[in-house]
Amino acid sequence: MYYIFVYDVGQKRVGRIHKFLKKYLFWIQNSVFEGELTEGTLAEVIAGLKKLIKMEIDSIIIFELGNRNYRSKQIVGIEKSPVDNFI
Amino acid sequence: MYYIFVYDVGQKRVGRIHKFLKKYLFWIQNSVFEGELTEGTLAEVIAGLKKLIKMEIDSIIIFELGNRNYRSKQIVGIEKSPVDNFI
Repeated sequence: MYYIFVYDVGQKRVGRIHKFLKKYLFWIQNSVFEGELTEGTLAEVIAGLKKLIKMEIDSIIIFELGNRNYRSKQIVGIEKSPVDNFI
Repeated sequence: MYYIFVYDVGQKRVGRIHKFLKKYLFWIQNSVFEGELTEGTLAEVIAGLKKLIKMEIDSIIIFELGNRNYRSKQIVGIEKSPVDNFI
């Protein structure tokens, strides 16, 4: 399944979350990652995130897009990630 | 079409962008909005954003999900928006 992760976490934990998600997904903007994950890997990522975040303050939204990717992606302003169109 | 907007803009412009996007979309997390837009309204939103952001610093990603919505959405941590499951 294809996923988009958007995190909104305390400043102190941004670096750790970023580093962790980078192992599984592609970084596309400051707090946005995307990529294909199996059900097992998704569970692993969620378990890992739960250890890293403060559950009562931080928030991570995971959009599951199904077997197909989104139709298109456009950016208004600058492209903050060096990697794009990796698909 | 259904869209997810994620913005990453300078602190000074956060309030203005938030207020502007709220007129067209549903707020789901600090810097994330989502909703259904016609082609015309999307163009209007993009034109409006271009006036509000600093094109050389700020970044807004727009995911176009097509006619269908995403399959599911889950949140790890807290739910930051008061409105959910509005669909």
